[in-house]
Amino acid sequence: MSENNHFKSEEISPASNVKLPLGFEFNGISSNIKPSGKKDMAIVKTDDNLPVYTLGVFTTNETKAAPVIFSKKSLEDSNNMISAVLLNSGNANAATGPNGLKVSESSANLVAKQLGCKSENILVCSTGLIGIPMPLDPFVASVPTLVGGSSNDIVAFNQAAEAILTTDTVKKTFIKSSTVDGYSIAGFAKGAAMLAPSMATMLSVIVTDAIIDKKLLGESFLAGIQDSFNSIVVDGCMSTNDTVILMTSAKKVCSDPEEFSLLLKDGLLHLAHQMVKDAEGGTVVAKLNIMRAKNQIQAKALASKVAQSVLVRCSLNGRDPYWGRIISELGAAKVNIDPNKVSISYGDIMVAKSGCAIDCDEEKLKAYMLNNEIEINVDINLGNDNYTMFFSDISHDYIDENIKTS
Amino acid sequence: MSENNHFKSEEISPASNVKLPLGFEFNGISSNIKPSGKKDMAIVKTDDNLPVYTLGVFTTNETKAAPVIFSKKSLEDSNNMISAVLLNSGNANAATGPNGLKVSESSANLVAKQLGCKSENILVCSTGLIGIPMPLDPFVASVPTLVGGSSNDIVAFNQAAEAILTTDTVKKTFIKSSTVDGYSIAGFAKGAAMLAPSMATMLSVIVTDAIIDKKLLGESFLAGIQDSFNSIVVDGCMSTNDTVILMTSAKKVCSDPEEFSLLLKDGLLHLAHQMVKDAEGGTVVAKLNIMRAKNQIQAKALASKVAQSVLVRCSLNGRDPYWGRIISELGAAKVNIDPNKVSISYGDIMVAKSGCAIDCDEEKLKAYMLNNEIEINVDINLGNDNYTMFFSDISHDYIDENIKTS
Repeated sequence: MSENNHFKSEEISPASNVKLPLGFEFNGISSNIKPSGKKDMAIVKTDDNLPVYTLGVFTTNETKAAPVIFSKKSLEDSNNMISAVLLNSGNANAATGPNGLKVSESSANLVAKQLGCKSENILVCSTGLIGIPMPLDPFVASVPTLVGGSSNDIVAFNQAAEAILTTDTVKKTFIKSSTVDGYSIAGFAKGAAMLAPSMATMLSVIVTDAIIDKKLLGESFLAGIQDSFNSIVVDGCMSTNDTVILMTSAKKVCSDPEEFSLLLKDGLLHLAHQMVKDAEGGTVVAKLNIMRAKNQIQAKALASKVAQSVLVRCSLNGRDPYWGRIISELGAAKVNIDPNKVSISYGDIMVAKSGCAIDCDEEKLKAYMLNNEIEINVDINLGNDNYTMFFSDISHDYIDENIKTS
Repeated sequence: MSENNHFKSEEISPASNVKLPLGFEFNGISSNIKPSGKKDMAIVKTDDNLPVYTLGVFTTNETKAAPVIFSKKSLEDSNNMISAVLLNSGNANAATGPNGLKVSESSANLVAKQLGCKSENILVCSTGLIGIPMPLDPFVASVPTLVGGSSNDIVAFNQAAEAILTTDTVKKTFIKSSTVDGYSIAGFAKGAAMLAPSMATMLSVIVTDAIIDKKLLGESFLAGIQDSFNSIVVDGCMSTNDTVILMTSAKKVCSDPEEFSLLLKDGLLHLAHQMVKDAEGGTVVAKLNIMRAKNQIQAKALASKVAQSVLVRCSLNGRDPYWGRIISELGAAKVNIDPNKVSISYGDIMVAKSGCAIDCDEEKLKAYMLNNEIEINVDINLGNDNYTMFFSDISHDYIDENIKTS
């Protein structure tokens, strides 16, 4: 997060040495769901079409999109054995009722027939506008090409990553490999708004060829999501479609499960950071460190309240070190802090101590506020628990991106 | 709220027939707390300097400003017997520690000495930037003139209303009189941002000459606040300084306590509506009606989630009837709704039924969205409880007003 290339694409070069996990194929094409003609349909599948052990984490929004309802059921019915994930952008297939659910089922069926598996071995993900009826036609027309043209190289992986983007300006991908055992973990994600602390508005598919104990895999996956996608905020709005999927082809020995957990967490964190960096209209990323809270619940509640504050995000946009809004939001969280014990620093420049302004090097502070990433360190001074959350500023461009759907 | 004069000043003309309550004096002057030299200090006092029965409702933010801490104690120590309220804008005296509290105490003392009462008979209110040390000098220099020059006419009342404004563009006032008994209720308020559903960022002083039973007065006051200041949202940020004060000179018979409750509620509602209409950068007011919820708690939680959504407020700014964001926020509130039962209308134009898009008159809808007030009717279809909340859109101007403190 410290590099200067704020809007640099994170695409993985096909010429690079990184190796995709064995056993998977990818593709991303245009199916004309997006009127622009940009890529909007993607597939991630096993190379032999056989189902592999797969985990999914979904939005907790009560207005669940059809693909979320369908995919949760698929995982249940198949005992988590999945052959392929079909993804589309351009239409979220959310708030589309029974017809929306039928389209999710039918599109999964199209893939299942082509692969020779059951539709319960297929997951589907959609992202885009909410409340627009989803047509089946693009799937009928494009699934054969999409599945037929899938391959296991980085070009195809990047195409899949591109096809799920909506307002994102860059692809979000990672590939991490074990230096000991040679297995890999790769993943891609989309998301630039509707990013709330309880899962961002996002889709993400992760694949690995490591052989991992199921219990350990589940624990690593959930812990990784907690520290990554659940720790970022763009606007505090929770989506109807959030989905993170992890497929495991189990082709390569993993002798150090701890290394696996770390690589997975690093990968997820990388995707989450790319999402905040690519936030709609975002000009700066804030890394908010809540320190010495009474406990994790308090620390998270405080971080979440500050990171979701429109006023704090306005100040951030203006590069204004107005800590008064931060201490006000801490108090508004109502989790029994003592504002008179709170210290606030921007980077290592302390601006408030014991809840009051203190003198600081104004010139140094002004210069610090011009960074592409700004650390806000808040010492609650009541206990020993810390929590870090990343969030973005709010700008004219954010409003412009969200003012009209068409 | 239906008139077209969206930004019209609501100042009460000195030539009008309305009568201020007997027994009170007002003043508002410039004390140079605001560098602009605009009015920034106000007083509301009894005409004989004797304390009268007074109620106060304060912010529940844990980061309470010094004047809030001081005034809560004054009410306690004096058994709610108050002679005057001293108010200032330009500095919130919040996050200012023990020194801030001393300034509140000393400024109250200055008024008390001049009136010949105790400092516990004085309330103080401040509004402005948070975290800036508050000097006592402006009070030492200006209190004598402020108190000495107070009078009981509408010009003085308007001056007091003007002196507490910050980013407000218009004074917010009301005077209501009983047609039966001739008593009056008058009040003024400030607030244009940091407006959250649990009390807006606001100061407000209400005075009445009606003789009212204390228990009834308290109930009417709290119920009135619940339906007014607690039912508006500009940005979901809760302030450190929110205060509403009600002083009663008890000069005139009130034969119909129900009429009093209604007049008080009307007055508070009028102030609250003026605040949303004057919202920083606001171009439109949304009246959100949550209908047929299971209970009041569910109805309020749903209203609050939708009204605080940055994305919903972006759509509102673009006059875009994007109901998908509304149904998404209803689900994100996590209060056990069934999205498949929800209907959403803009005015009387239904756009979604049973959780799905339905055909509507697009031209009529487009025209409706251009109104200065837009009604959003959400039928939860689970019970019989309704709740209404007012909120504003978010615009470039809102960001511009909040991007820099100086």
